Amino acid sequence: MSSESQSAEDINRRANEKSAKRKEARDKMMAEKTREKGLVIIHTGKGKGKSTAAFGMVMRCIGHGMKVGVVQFIKGAWNTGERTVLERFPDLCEIKAIGEGFTWETQNRERDIMFSRQAWDEACRMMDDPSFKLVLMDELNICLRYDYLPLDEVIAKLTAKRPDLHVIITGRNAKDELIEIADLVTEMTMIKHPFRDGVKAQQGIEF
Amino acid sequence: MSSESQSAEDINRRANEKSAKRKEARDKMMAEKTREKGLVIIHTGKGKGKSTAAFGMVMRCIGHGMKVGVVQFIKGAWNTGERTVLERFPDLCEIKAIGEGFTWETQNRERDIMFSRQAWDEACRMMDDPSFKLVLMDELNICLRYDYLPLDEVIAKLTAKRPDLHVIITGRNAKDELIEIADLVTEMTMIKHPFRDGVKAQQGIEF
Repeated sequence: MSSESQSAEDINRRANEKSAKRKEARDKMMAEKTREKGLVIIHTGKGKGKSTAAFGMVMRCIGHGMKVGVVQFIKGAWNTGERTVLERFPDLCEIKAIGEGFTWETQNRERDIMFSRQAWDEACRMMDDPSFKLVLMDELNICLRYDYLPLDEVIAKLTAKRPDLHVIITGRNAKDELIEIADLVTEMTMIKHPFRDGVKAQQGIEF
Repeated sequence: MSSESQSAEDINRRANEKSAKRKEARDKMMAEKTREKGLVIIHTGKGKGKSTAAFGMVMRCIGHGMKVGVVQFIKGAWNTGERTVLERFPDLCEIKAIGEGFTWETQNRERDIMFSRQAWDEACRMMDDPSFKLVLMDELNICLRYDYLPLDEVIAKLTAKRPDLHVIITGRNAKDELIEIADLVTEMTMIKHPFRDGVKAQQGIEF
């Protein structure tokens, strides 16, 4: 056997030993995780993927036969791509799209507040209905940031929710008080974006 | 009119003016974005949502009638939730799940390398087939990190891809050279995770 192939064998052997140790550590770690709990999940940050990952989680739950509620707080309507897919599962997904575009499109704070309240009422109804296993409150963080909804009221409702219900809240600038009561918080950070090269929003990517 | 309601009126008026300026700035910015381009998209970082956001984008494209290819580089099979949904769209989605679990499960580097090569061959075939509009290479970053595939070969293929093809590459520890040639890079950062409170992986959330 040449020294070169011995060397490759060594690399593989060492890698396999390391891998075995990682598996052992992981198995031990996972064995300690025994609780089930309905989670408060937050996707925040300036990067892309906050709503998209939430939508992915919605689809995964639907795949498991779990009923999902979706409330769109700011955008007037979900992207046609998402809607087309969700509408294929009418028994497992209820969508409420409230409001009429991003706040910088409406230029009417009073109306934004009114729509935020309507959306929150819908979200509360879904949270109270035990047939829903997951409720997505898309862009709720924006409403909280602009004080369209009282933070105290939202926190109180979330901390008193059914213990088996998962909720996902998306949007930039999640409030610290919300992060405090959340179970799973992910920040999407933009490292690179094609807009800076003059590339426009494209079907399937941005909408 | 009381001074209190005047004040509320003032707040709304100022907010609406600010909103109008934001809209103007945004419209001007978006008017300059005129190019269409097939993007190289990377989801990396230690946080959750990398594959989930990619899956969300896959579903969105399917909703638009765009054909999507999915290659699973490391996990042996996609989560049943995702699969159930994707299998509802057989004309628009081809899935190749290669390998047999995470590397720390297999403990066999030679076999990991062989599976990585098989997966990469599938991804190349999809990239060369113009019927695919998007190709997701899930966990490819892991293969590159452990040198299961030559980085040069992957970079060369991606930079020479069809200009209208979008690709998404997921996984922790994306190589700098890959980030360099990418158009859209998002890092998912973990702020808070329920494992630390002893909560186990749950259906719809982790799988």
